[in-house]
Amino acid sequence: MIRIGVLASGGGTNLQAIIDACERGDIDGSVVIVISDKADAYSLVRARKRGIEAVSIPPEGTGREEHEKLVDATLQKARVDLVVLAGYMRILTPWFINRYLGRMMNIHPALLPSFGGKGMYGEHVHRAVIEYGCKLSGCTVHFVVPEVDGGPIIIQESVPVLEEDTPDSLASRIHPLEHKLYPKAIALFASGKLKIEGRRVRIID
Amino acid sequence: MIRIGVLASGGGTNLQAIIDACERGDIDGSVVIVISDKADAYSLVRARKRGIEAVSIPPEGTGREEHEKLVDATLQKARVDLVVLAGYMRILTPWFINRYLGRMMNIHPALLPSFGGKGMYGEHVHRAVIEYGCKLSGCTVHFVVPEVDGGPIIIQESVPVLEEDTPDSLASRIHPLEHKLYPKAIALFASGKLKIEGRRVRIID
Repeated sequence: MIRIGVLASGGGTNLQAIIDACERGDIDGSVVIVISDKADAYSLVRARKRGIEAVSIPPEGTGREEHEKLVDATLQKARVDLVVLAGYMRILTPWFINRYLGRMMNIHPALLPSFGGKGMYGEHVHRAVIEYGCKLSGCTVHFVVPEVDGGPIIIQESVPVLEEDTPDSLASRIHPLEHKLYPKAIALFASGKLKIEGRRVRIID
Repeated sequence: MIRIGVLASGGGTNLQAIIDACERGDIDGSVVIVISDKADAYSLVRARKRGIEAVSIPPEGTGREEHEKLVDATLQKARVDLVVLAGYMRILTPWFINRYLGRMMNIHPALLPSFGGKGMYGEHVHRAVIEYGCKLSGCTVHFVVPEVDGGPIIIQESVPVLEEDTPDSLASRIHPLEHKLYPKAIALFASGKLKIEGRRVRIID
C-alpha cells in the first residue's frame, strides 16, 4: 500500500478518478493528503468528502521557496511515497522536483514531446494541436523532471482530432482518457512495476 | 482519374501499396510514372512489372537545380496531378516544392510534429522515438512544404512502442500502417476530398 499525496489547484476530476481507483482497489495505495494552493479549490472538497486530509497552502505573502518548503514539509509529515500533480498550476523549482525525482508524476493532455513545455497547459495545448492541424492527439503520464513536460514517459494513448473540433470539444474527448490513464500509471507505480532507465520507463511484468 | 507520379530511391514498398490500391480501384487514379535518382532502385523494377513508365535520373554530374529541372520536366511530360514521395532520399529545393504545393505528399514514420525535420528519416526516427522513451509512435501523411516534415497533415495513426522494441522491430510495425495510410490519403486527394486551409487539411464528406 503506497501513500499518495496529490497537488491540485482546481476542480480535481483527475484527483477524483485516482481516489475512486484506490477505493475500488485498482491502485494498491490510497490518497492520504491533498494540497492546494487555492483555498477554494474544489479538489479540497472532494478530498474531505472521502475523509482525506485536505490542506490549503496559499502562496500569497510567502516567497516561492518558502511556499514550496511548506508544501514539502506537509508531504513529508503525511509520509507520502508518491506525489501526483493533478492540475497543479504552479511551476515547481528544481529544488522541489529533485526531492521527488522518480516519485512525482504529472499528466499532459497531448502526445509528448509534441505540444509540451512552458505555457502549454489546458486549453492552450488543445488550441495548438488544432492550429497545427494534427489528426491525432492524446494524453501522456510522465515522471516530473526539472525540464517542463520533459520527464520519462510512463504511458501514452491517442485520440483522433475531428474535423469540427474546438479546443473544448477536443479537451472533453481527452478528459476520459486522462481519468483512465492516470490511475493506470499510479497502479503500475504502486505495484512496483515501473523502472526508470535514463529517459525510458520500463514496465516490468 | 488522377495521374500520379512517384519519386522513390529505394525498394518501394509504399509504391507497391499505392500501385495495388490503384489496381484494386481504391484510388481513383493510376501511377503513370516512377522516377528514381538511383538507377538500380527496385521501385523501377516494380513499376516496369506493372507496365508503368520507369525513369532513372541520377544526380551525378548535374547540379542540384539542373537535376530537379530534369525531374520536373519528366513529371510535366507525364502530366501528373499528384507527386508522391515514397522513400525519395533527396532534399528538394523550395523551387521544386513550390511548383507542387498542395499536390505533393510525403509520408513520415512518426507522429509529427514529434521526431521530424532534417536528418529524421528511416531508422533515425525510430531510434529517436525509442531513446526518448515514447510509448506511442505512428505514421503521418502530409503535403510537402519547404520546411522539412512541416506541411499540412492529411492523416495520422498511432502504434504502441513495446518494451522490447528496437528501431527495426518498431519500423516493421509501422510499415504496414504506412502501406494502409498512404493509399488512403491519396484516395482522398483523388476524390477531391482534401481541402487545405492554412496549416489544416479538411477532409470533406
